[in-house]
Amino acid sequence: MGEDIVNPAKSRAKGRRPPIDDRRREIARMAAELFDSAGYPRTTMEDIAQAVGVGKSSLYHYFSSKDEILFWIHEEFIDHLIERHEKRLSAQLTPSVLLLEVMADILELMETHRGHVRVFFEHHRELPKERKETIRVKRSHYEAMVEDIFVDGIASGEFRDTDPKLVSLAMFGMCNWAYQWYRPQGSLRTRDIAYSFWSYLVHGVASGATEIRLSTDDLN
Amino acid sequence: MGEDIVNPAKSRAKGRRPPIDDRRREIARMAAELFDSAGYPRTTMEDIAQAVGVGKSSLYHYFSSKDEILFWIHEEFIDHLIERHEKRLSAQLTPSVLLLEVMADILELMETHRGHVRVFFEHHRELPKERKETIRVKRSHYEAMVEDIFVDGIASGEFRDTDPKLVSLAMFGMCNWAYQWYRPQGSLRTRDIAYSFWSYLVHGVASGATEIRLSTDDLN
Repeated sequence: MGEDIVNPAKSRAKGRRPPIDDRRREIARMAAELFDSAGYPRTTMEDIAQAVGVGKSSLYHYFSSKDEILFWIHEEFIDHLIERHEKRLSAQLTPSVLLLEVMADILELMETHRGHVRVFFEHHRELPKERKETIRVKRSHYEAMVEDIFVDGIASGEFRDTDPKLVSLAMFGMCNWAYQWYRPQGSLRTRDIAYSFWSYLVHGVASGATEIRLSTDDLN
Repeated sequence: MGEDIVNPAKSRAKGRRPPIDDRRREIARMAAELFDSAGYPRTTMEDIAQAVGVGKSSLYHYFSSKDEILFWIHEEFIDHLIERHEKRLSAQLTPSVLLLEVMADILELMETHRGHVRVFFEHHRELPKERKETIRVKRSHYEAMVEDIFVDGIASGEFRDTDPKLVSLAMFGMCNWAYQWYRPQGSLRTRDIAYSFWSYLVHGVASGATEIRLSTDDLN
């Protein structure tokens, strides 16, 4: 799963991500699983140390507190979303294709990072103020990039004139909410869900949106 | 706010809701506010008794535990949604109007019951098994009624052929997610948001969905 985010060997070669971060990522993944099954408030640093198979003092070498793990968990998936989106920006894709890819990125998290996503959505308010602020800045950056998809689509005439902020919130809602219901063992793959959700949002569910409006009466 | 759900005087006259339930509703409302500000795990029965202005033993007369309050909180808003929807079913509304009303009902909760909604969404997994089952049955009932809107709309030709379950999940996501971002002091009223979200879902955001398709070329 770590490879979904970054290839550790490649990153080390570039000197950007030291091995300590690989270990942190591994600990965060196990902690996220514990938070997801037992709940964030009930999980102790001791539980995490035990799950990872290290002593409590070793664990503190990587993370000074549970809050720091929660912060790291958020960093991990938001960085992943930003990285994927930024890579695509140079590819000259149309706004609606970019939108589909963003929706697929978020829904894919429900398969690869479900514990991460849930614990963040439900406990981010409990983080210390400074951490919250760092997170807010990064999330705003991602949200602004997503809003820009709508801004660009409206400017190019691909999308009708809507409020880019509000339509982004609708889209994030459709996709983020899947953390409440998506089960990897179900019959639907996240990419199929992304495609359906995208088609509802872009084309609508009214028959009229694709067929009925086409009547001679409308031409008067 | 209580009046949004039921007129207590009227209900008592009908003999359906005893005064103890009015008191329970009041306690649940104060508890929901505490859960929303301080967090569910951190709020004690003592804190709730203090906020309500009764002794701890009086509080236990109404609720045997925090879990029971959480359960009641859910009952209150799900009953409210079901009641509103059922009343409308006899009014011969079209599926797309019914859909708009459902979306407005849910979004309105973010104004009238934000604490209720948040504490339920984030803590329902912590309820005892039996309570969870009761809730599951009631939620499934509501979700099935909402899916039926799509089933009926597809049957009547008002909606295109989509998966009623999946499109319901998209709609619930758009609306439910507002508990994370909606602020009553903001410039948007929940009904305006409902109308915008409904128009995205029914008509889509593509220009083609409402205008471009209407050309004489399409008539060939």
